[in-house]
Amino acid sequence: MNKKADALRITPRSESHPDWYQDVVREGQLAEAAEIVKGAMVIKPHGYAVWEKIQGELDRRFKATGHKNAYFPLLIPESFLKKEAEHVEGFSPELAVVTVAGGQELEEKYVIRPTSETVIGHFFAQWIQSWRDLPLLINQWANVVRWELRPRLFLRTTEFLWQEGHTAHASHEEAKEEVLRMLDVYADFAEDFMAMPVIRGEKTASEKFAGAVTTFCIEAMMQDGKALQAGTSHDLGQNFGKAFNVRFQNEQGELDYVWQTSWGVSTRLIGGLVMTHSDDNGLVLPPKLAPIHAVIVPFFRKNADENARVREAGAELARALEAEGLTVKFDDRDGAPGPKFFENERLGVPLRFGLGPRDLVERQLEFKRRDQSEKRSIPLDGAAKFAKEALADMQQELFRRALARREANTVRVDDYDDFLDLMKSERDSESKFVFAHWDGTPETEAKVKAETKATIRCIPLPGQGFEAEPGTCMVTKKPSAQRVIWAKSY
Amino acid sequence: MNKKADALRITPRSESHPDWYQDVVREGQLAEAAEIVKGAMVIKPHGYAVWEKIQGELDRRFKATGHKNAYFPLLIPESFLKKEAEHVEGFSPELAVVTVAGGQELEEKYVIRPTSETVIGHFFAQWIQSWRDLPLLINQWANVVRWELRPRLFLRTTEFLWQEGHTAHASHEEAKEEVLRMLDVYADFAEDFMAMPVIRGEKTASEKFAGAVTTFCIEAMMQDGKALQAGTSHDLGQNFGKAFNVRFQNEQGELDYVWQTSWGVSTRLIGGLVMTHSDDNGLVLPPKLAPIHAVIVPFFRKNADENARVREAGAELARALEAEGLTVKFDDRDGAPGPKFFENERLGVPLRFGLGPRDLVERQLEFKRRDQSEKRSIPLDGAAKFAKEALADMQQELFRRALARREANTVRVDDYDDFLDLMKSERDSESKFVFAHWDGTPETEAKVKAETKATIRCIPLPGQGFEAEPGTCMVTKKPSAQRVIWAKSY
Repeated sequence: MNKKADALRITPRSESHPDWYQDVVREGQLAEAAEIVKGAMVIKPHGYAVWEKIQGELDRRFKATGHKNAYFPLLIPESFLKKEAEHVEGFSPELAVVTVAGGQELEEKYVIRPTSETVIGHFFAQWIQSWRDLPLLINQWANVVRWELRPRLFLRTTEFLWQEGHTAHASHEEAKEEVLRMLDVYADFAEDFMAMPVIRGEKTASEKFAGAVTTFCIEAMMQDGKALQAGTSHDLGQNFGKAFNVRFQNEQGELDYVWQTSWGVSTRLIGGLVMTHSDDNGLVLPPKLAPIHAVIVPFFRKNADENARVREAGAELARALEAEGLTVKFDDRDGAPGPKFFENERLGVPLRFGLGPRDLVERQLEFKRRDQSEKRSIPLDGAAKFAKEALADMQQELFRRALARREANTVRVDDYDDFLDLMKSERDSESKFVFAHWDGTPETEAKVKAETKATIRCIPLPGQGFEAEPGTCMVTKKPSAQRVIWAKSY
Repeated sequence: MNKKADALRITPRSESHPDWYQDVVREGQLAEAAEIVKGAMVIKPHGYAVWEKIQGELDRRFKATGHKNAYFPLLIPESFLKKEAEHVEGFSPELAVVTVAGGQELEEKYVIRPTSETVIGHFFAQWIQSWRDLPLLINQWANVVRWELRPRLFLRTTEFLWQEGHTAHASHEEAKEEVLRMLDVYADFAEDFMAMPVIRGEKTASEKFAGAVTTFCIEAMMQDGKALQAGTSHDLGQNFGKAFNVRFQNEQGELDYVWQTSWGVSTRLIGGLVMTHSDDNGLVLPPKLAPIHAVIVPFFRKNADENARVREAGAELARALEAEGLTVKFDDRDGAPGPKFFENERLGVPLRFGLGPRDLVERQLEFKRRDQSEKRSIPLDGAAKFAKEALADMQQELFRRALARREANTVRVDDYDDFLDLMKSERDSESKFVFAHWDGTPETEAKVKAETKATIRCIPLPGQGFEAEPGTCMVTKKPSAQRVIWAKSY
């Protein structure tokens, strides 16, 4: 579909991870830079189809946990952001501002939402009066704009698509439960659907959301060992409740401010998907998020009758696969199979079937899984059931590989000199997660960041195999309650 | 959920149609004005759930006709709009302009998309090179901004949600087929799902889309007799192809500009839904677009054992209805049934079941359909099947009533004095569609509009019972090829 994309090479990952990423995104027909607007992108049909799969499953999970979708305005009066001091400080440098509308200079400027805590706080104040109105559990699917100086497709774009959950509760305890519930929804989705293992944890004060009391996150390791923050869930305390005067009468008849949460994931997830599974041949998609599960390529010969039978058998196989719930592409365009294999491989189609006249005689099919290098023959009879099992197996295998890679590239360091050696000796495509002690101060964190570019990705929550034993900070040797995850990140 | 909305009255339609509309939207919890941004609205969860139903079905139909979803930037360089002369003239007064971003004054200003022909034209030029790349069939679900001086919830808001289809073809003939195909998709959806009869027709030159060769539309009659333009489908000719240099090599090896179409419907449809079916008791939703199909209200008495049995029977009924594919609300909150009836009636829930201890003994249920005034008793056994049939019947009945109303309020006029009398004698809540001859000139159209506020809603396409016999213009007595639909409109 893209003139420029015809037959372009994918840079091997070992040569340059950033170039490889850009090439896989382009050749996978996921997106392209929209150079007409700084840092913006076009999400192409194949990329958008992946986003629809992500949306569909997350939306189902949000509704299953009691949330309802709504839609709030894109434009926010500039004064709204200023009502929460940390919030405006955090977002001011990234704002796009509307100063003219309907042919007139505006009296009050509007910003395009970088996130919607403020405008939603305003409406919550009108909608909530009593504990009976709580909890109020809202989600919004929307676009947001944050001006990016170093844009990168899906990972950092000036406009992106996301969902933002916004909830209000009668107690801090209940709000904190919600924050962790949604963090678990994200983590389960990432692991079950994206086949991307994640570490759930708490952000340090310097990495938290501007305006939150506490930010929790899921962090994933990309194939170069760098961390990707894949989703966040914020305990907003009463910060926005106070800023927007969101008060309710509690069961005792007293007025109190509501306790709020917010949580979001974005099209950034697609970047994470690419960097978790794809290879030097292009995109690899986990079956649960693949818009097309299987491609069937007929092998045509010279005999027209034989070709007609092959075409018929291919169409029949497609119907059998569809009857098992698979989405199938029957690629019976004229032409040799090679370029079709090549194209569908780059698109990340999980399963590929080839079928020629001799296969029909022998009642067999050529079969190749996108995550395996060898093709093989399988019986034509029962192929649909075989395909369904292959998809389930591939889904698990992708997760298993990603988890094994993360485990192999997570190290424990006790001494800061070792940490410095490690960070400095790393090649760009072979980074690591370091599990090390920290004294809990922003000063130590800032020093490490300045000296190595590594940051604290999170303080892991219990129950993930990162045991919370006390120790001494690797930098200052002061007491540390538990090890934290340090890494370079996207 | 809304403080201000508690127990407010719905103005009878006969008293004031605009007030009635506003009250139904508020009490139906569909949306509210977001006064913080001129002309913006918040779509509340119940309204958004209706939009999701609309989206789901339209999206299915777009995909079934070969279209793929994608996503293009929200912001458009101001210079892009100027590339198509009519387009910029039409949209300039409505633009919101971003002049500052990332803390800096921008060198080139961006407008927030009022529609995306220009930005999509830019990308089509990069994606298309040969007839093999055509047709290119794209759809986008997005928000757009058009500054409105006289906003009205759903009908005219500064920001609204919509879909915009954009396609490119190798010939004008093929493009024109696409334009009418999508008009039919809209018309079928409006009639089958919204139960809203529509007239398919062509817009006059003065009412067409800025930049189109021809605009087709579906027009519906609201309960006050006014017309609502519910969807448009544009033949763009080569206008945008030339403006954005979208060229392809045809099968003969010659370079030519592509032929483009665009088509859209928006959250305005929800306004049409309200004004087609709702009554003085609030919202009435056609079953195919109702987020909740049935509410079950238990009648509690003093005996706790009896109440437990009623609750159990209600839950069992809910499961039986869900097994038939219905979405059910089991409203077993404490409290009398009256307020629950009242609330669910205002929300437009199509079916209501009531169930008390005596009903259980007699194996019966109280039943009421939202579009009927009387409640009745039905057997408890087989209630789920009964409910399913009642929904199908209600869907048809709503369409039948709306069609009968349109037919009763469409008149044929041959003389302009009669037309003037009719338009002037009309009360605001009793307008009419007038089927009358027109000489085809913008001057006559403008004169009628100035004198009566009525405009030509469309020149009806054949095959809808509006026969195309020639005659003489009611105003100038010049020749007329066929009658057109005149009406006041939203």
